[in-house]
Amino acid sequence: MSGLQLLSEHRCFGGFQRFYRHDSREIGLPMQFAVYLPPQAEQGAVPVLVYLAGLTCTEETATIKAGAQQWAAQHGLALVMPDTSPRGANLPGDSDSWDFGVGAGFYVDATEQPWAAHYRMESYVVRELPELLKTLPLDVSRMGICGHSMGGHGALTLALKYPGVFRSVSAFAPIAAPGRCPWGQKAFAGYLGEDREVWKRHDASELMAQARNPFPEGILIDQGLADKFLAEQLYPEAFEAACAKAGQPLTLRRHAGYDHGYYFIQSFMADHVVHHAGVLSK
Amino acid sequence: MSGLQLLSEHRCFGGFQRFYRHDSREIGLPMQFAVYLPPQAEQGAVPVLVYLAGLTCTEETATIKAGAQQWAAQHGLALVMPDTSPRGANLPGDSDSWDFGVGAGFYVDATEQPWAAHYRMESYVVRELPELLKTLPLDVSRMGICGHSMGGHGALTLALKYPGVFRSVSAFAPIAAPGRCPWGQKAFAGYLGEDREVWKRHDASELMAQARNPFPEGILIDQGLADKFLAEQLYPEAFEAACAKAGQPLTLRRHAGYDHGYYFIQSFMADHVVHHAGVLSK
Repeated sequence: MSGLQLLSEHRCFGGFQRFYRHDSREIGLPMQFAVYLPPQAEQGAVPVLVYLAGLTCTEETATIKAGAQQWAAQHGLALVMPDTSPRGANLPGDSDSWDFGVGAGFYVDATEQPWAAHYRMESYVVRELPELLKTLPLDVSRMGICGHSMGGHGALTLALKYPGVFRSVSAFAPIAAPGRCPWGQKAFAGYLGEDREVWKRHDASELMAQARNPFPEGILIDQGLADKFLAEQLYPEAFEAACAKAGQPLTLRRHAGYDHGYYFIQSFMADHVVHHAGVLSK
Repeated sequence: MSGLQLLSEHRCFGGFQRFYRHDSREIGLPMQFAVYLPPQAEQGAVPVLVYLAGLTCTEETATIKAGAQQWAAQHGLALVMPDTSPRGANLPGDSDSWDFGVGAGFYVDATEQPWAAHYRMESYVVRELPELLKTLPLDVSRMGICGHSMGGHGALTLALKYPGVFRSVSAFAPIAAPGRCPWGQKAFAGYLGEDREVWKRHDASELMAQARNPFPEGILIDQGLADKFLAEQLYPEAFEAACAKAGQPLTLRRHAGYDHGYYFIQSFMADHVVHHAGVLSK
């Protein structure tokens, strides 16, 4: 028994867009996630691209807005899109702001109270989700990770911390140095406490600066230059410098005129699917 | 002065996704619509594909969910997506049901009270919108129309009634014989009264049966066979029979497993854009 409850299923580009619900061991509450199975999954297990969404989003956001299914169908990749935080914990203050608590799990395992019991998105994505995915026609030994904004932070940090889990990584407008920006500082102080040495273990630029070419086939990042969060929250230049220090090949594309939203993301999604498919097909 | 207020603009696939607001002459209230300008619009006026959405939808629905921008960018077509009804009229009963009143204008000019003053979506789409579009880099002499469900009904009927306005037409899961189905009967009785002869002037199958090959380059319709509304509400076979009678070339594609939603629509959107671009480029 996988414990997965199929909520809905829609034919899409010859494959199936599905939504699942399950009782999560790590989160201690029901969780939902989306899976796109490309047509190739009818012939056997296919590689997986996990996509982590940003602040305020759910498993539906990129499923509806990113336009990724067509490319996944073309390249034989499954898409797995989890939610961004626990739902229904009803902790004091968990809905007071859009950048902390519900919809803002930041893909860490909280150590501070009252968050530590349920806010365990790191273990959820890295440990529980792959186990669940094994019950579907998915090859979790070939898994890549991608994300947007807070989810770009999640993708970069989880890939760097768990290279045995994720073989490829990319991001759209990631929070690339959360220890330096208001979003990250608020989330880390709340979930992890005030020790900034602890924060460094969840900061993509800090992790990369300590690494040695962890992804030899390169990392792809797209960033819009009309992104209103770029200057204050994102710091791609910090991650770029860390990659240079680590000998990590990085393709960081800066796009004039593009903003932080899904009209930007969909414009470059094809290249991300191609990037992951290229690594995962080997 | 066009009277168009630009609400937002997002770079997308090298072009611009815009949302506009204006005081509508036909509707007598503020209205909003979405425009996607492909990159080619920077060189001069481009042809236009008007997309009409279905029950409960707004100008945002297909803009977010249909994945049409990439194909519009590739083929140099603008996309215009209006709202589906007046907003803010606050008429008695206009929000009691999801298939009548707000979000359910049915693309007719109402003659019954209290609807007649504001529910004038036919004149809005056919007369007012093209005038507004002339103030943008759009060639409204090369305009096609497409739609989904209630919007498919709108696209087919308005194309048949106004061949001088629309040179190409296609639909996804259209309400193809509204006089025979509960949605259409409820809307027509409410907006147009009980005279079924009047209804025939707003029924795609009735209009086609009286026509003579109005669109010699063909009509494209996609229909999912797992569409839960197919048997009771849509009647594509009635439209198919009318096309046969009228000598109208019709490509009616029936897709096993696909439902009524935007995972279906996005799967076949490319073919619709190609269909319209092919006619409108001549």
